[in-house]
Amino acid sequence: MKAMGPIPPEFVVPGHERLQLGGTDFAEVVGDEPTPVFAYDRSVIRRRVEQFRAAMPREVALHYAVKANPYGPLLAELSGLVDGFDLASLGELRQVQAALATGAAPEGSHLPLSFAGPGKLDEELAAGLESRITFQVESEGEFERVVRLAAGREQGRGGRPRLAVRVNPPFGLKGSGMKMGGLASQFGVDHEAVPGLVRRIVEAGAEWRGLHVYAGSQSLSAEAVSEMQRATVALAGEIAAEVGLSPPEVNLGGGFGIPYFPGDKPLDIEAVGAALKETLAARPAILRDTKFVIELGRWLVGEGGVYLTRVIDRKVSRGKTFLVVDGGLHHMLAASGNFGQLLRRNYPVAVAHRRGAEAEEEVTVVGCLCTPLDLLGDEVMLPRAEVGDFIAIFCAGAYGRTASPEAFLSQGAAREVLV
Amino acid sequence: MKAMGPIPPEFVVPGHERLQLGGTDFAEVVGDEPTPVFAYDRSVIRRRVEQFRAAMPREVALHYAVKANPYGPLLAELSGLVDGFDLASLGELRQVQAALATGAAPEGSHLPLSFAGPGKLDEELAAGLESRITFQVESEGEFERVVRLAAGREQGRGGRPRLAVRVNPPFGLKGSGMKMGGLASQFGVDHEAVPGLVRRIVEAGAEWRGLHVYAGSQSLSAEAVSEMQRATVALAGEIAAEVGLSPPEVNLGGGFGIPYFPGDKPLDIEAVGAALKETLAARPAILRDTKFVIELGRWLVGEGGVYLTRVIDRKVSRGKTFLVVDGGLHHMLAASGNFGQLLRRNYPVAVAHRRGAEAEEEVTVVGCLCTPLDLLGDEVMLPRAEVGDFIAIFCAGAYGRTASPEAFLSQGAAREVLV
Repeated sequence: MKAMGPIPPEFVVPGHERLQLGGTDFAEVVGDEPTPVFAYDRSVIRRRVEQFRAAMPREVALHYAVKANPYGPLLAELSGLVDGFDLASLGELRQVQAALATGAAPEGSHLPLSFAGPGKLDEELAAGLESRITFQVESEGEFERVVRLAAGREQGRGGRPRLAVRVNPPFGLKGSGMKMGGLASQFGVDHEAVPGLVRRIVEAGAEWRGLHVYAGSQSLSAEAVSEMQRATVALAGEIAAEVGLSPPEVNLGGGFGIPYFPGDKPLDIEAVGAALKETLAARPAILRDTKFVIELGRWLVGEGGVYLTRVIDRKVSRGKTFLVVDGGLHHMLAASGNFGQLLRRNYPVAVAHRRGAEAEEEVTVVGCLCTPLDLLGDEVMLPRAEVGDFIAIFCAGAYGRTASPEAFLSQGAAREVLV
Repeated sequence: MKAMGPIPPEFVVPGHERLQLGGTDFAEVVGDEPTPVFAYDRSVIRRRVEQFRAAMPREVALHYAVKANPYGPLLAELSGLVDGFDLASLGELRQVQAALATGAAPEGSHLPLSFAGPGKLDEELAAGLESRITFQVESEGEFERVVRLAAGREQGRGGRPRLAVRVNPPFGLKGSGMKMGGLASQFGVDHEAVPGLVRRIVEAGAEWRGLHVYAGSQSLSAEAVSEMQRATVALAGEIAAEVGLSPPEVNLGGGFGIPYFPGDKPLDIEAVGAALKETLAARPAILRDTKFVIELGRWLVGEGGVYLTRVIDRKVSRGKTFLVVDGGLHHMLAASGNFGQLLRRNYPVAVAHRRGAEAEEEVTVVGCLCTPLDLLGDEVMLPRAEVGDFIAIFCAGAYGRTASPEAFLSQGAAREVLV
């Protein structure tokens, strides 16, 4: 038997043995439509936004990092909840624009948009100028390209380019699975070169929007996140002092993790908020009127998503019981262990109609693909499931469908639904 | 400086400094169309087929495992070169049918098709019955479903179901990155239960097509592959003897690897062929009239594919030079290290217009995605490349586009072209 990660608390509802999604029985959510399906529970996502607002200083704005999940109805839902969207491609800009154009999201249509990414194409820069979004400039070369493109546009169209500078900081998020600072990096401009670039931006007549520092992601340590935020505010103060200008905005990045694996404990968001209050209270005077932004993706939507997949076969091989499901790593690559991670660990998994029942057998849940890497739950203890039953894989709301090789073995896409 | 894998010999053409694809300059192949692009060189693929035919015993048929690369023009090309297609989904069946329906592939339209996969859906079984393909039956439950579906069809349509049995063997491919035998498995029927299932197939009035054993993949050891083939032939003989019937066909699986990483040496295909000749010459009498099949994907098409991506930015961070390209892990996940492999190694990489030039600087080639995992060549020595130049990543013909998260960060798909 191998342990699995914790099921998000919102799906462990006392009195309900069957899995509920937004107060609805999972079977109703699946309906008669094709499976597998990603179901995103808007009540869980709303709860995360409320938790953020309750814990964080009032002056901190919340942006959604679209890369975590660009599903249209989810973007429309979030547009009424967050203060801006952070983009990583022209494709994401188009998805946000499409989602905000629907009747469901009238309030979102004036949300600020910003665009980060080390390899922005000329056509992306041009489209972003057209849409008046803020670019997180990642290099001197990119700055020159965007200024050239802006100058080449028709007179009077759109106004000055909005440019923030992405900073490659001298520190990283400690213990982060994905450290993004303190090193040579393709992201942003080395911190010591930032004042010079800000001066160039101002001299070029562009609108300087501020600074963006992203030092890592998926941390479960409030201490590490708070330390990163303290260091970011200090660095922003130093850069501002050197330039002699107050940055209108400082994006503190994200880094808030969610529990996926055995032993993972949720990030203490209240502790992060309390520390950030202290940090902001003590901030340098030059940042007094600066707007601070935290940019979250995974933490907002990750735990609200459940991947539901149907059991196609139940078989015993050499004493081990396998449940073969109609989904697989082509939809949920991270749950499978990313094509052969050395230390694969189990995501939280349940039998959907017996979520609250006693576990009674050890099974290995495998996808339908013709590869031994297609492993969704390895030697987990579950209530008995038969052919036709549904297996739920939790923590599927972020970096699920879009971070998986959907065309692998030509098995086809999963459905998505917002509940 | 870190080493990289070997460039496939066909692309190291003396006298040509610029990368040639099928005798054409890479820039002509790219043309003015959008990048990045996967270019598949048919001459390399033909060469692999010739090498196989020259080395292997004449009686061994060659099947193409469509999962390696289902690109339509490639399937059409292969239909004139191989003796059958092995499928892993209904999607692949449809892609093969579409490719064979084009004028380019008239000879392929009668190639035998077989379908393996542990989670075949009822609709896949029904479509396969309709198309008269052979199923590699993976469990008793699947056998019962296919017989039930066949019985429910209109009288006189299609004839008897064609069923082979996929065997979970008591051995694996030694040293294979993906061992698929000798263990409890979702694939196939444990070998000791196979004779019973073959009898059920025959008693049910289905057409028994034989046995399929797939014990592992991506091996560079001729000894290990030969040992697996010997063991497979012996096992097939034992099963046949126990049933008292000659299998019309025995699929020996694949397992032929290609060199990707520093130090990898090509599989000695002549040695594999010589050993297989001996194995088949000494085979049990009950397999005398059996047709043997080897099923290859990666080995046939992997080295013929090159991923071409354009340099968007050149930047120096803390003394390290980065080339940021317009492609990334959303197209070539395996080259990036599969979302954070512990021991990431470099695929072979080149500057396309200076492929044959002296290396002169150490660079890190990164994709355009906003994640530090998007690493295509880490601290590799290359000739100097400027913005606008092309980087070629080799060994991109198999498990490239379709094994990558194409929707990641909504960056969009790569083009594909057969040269």
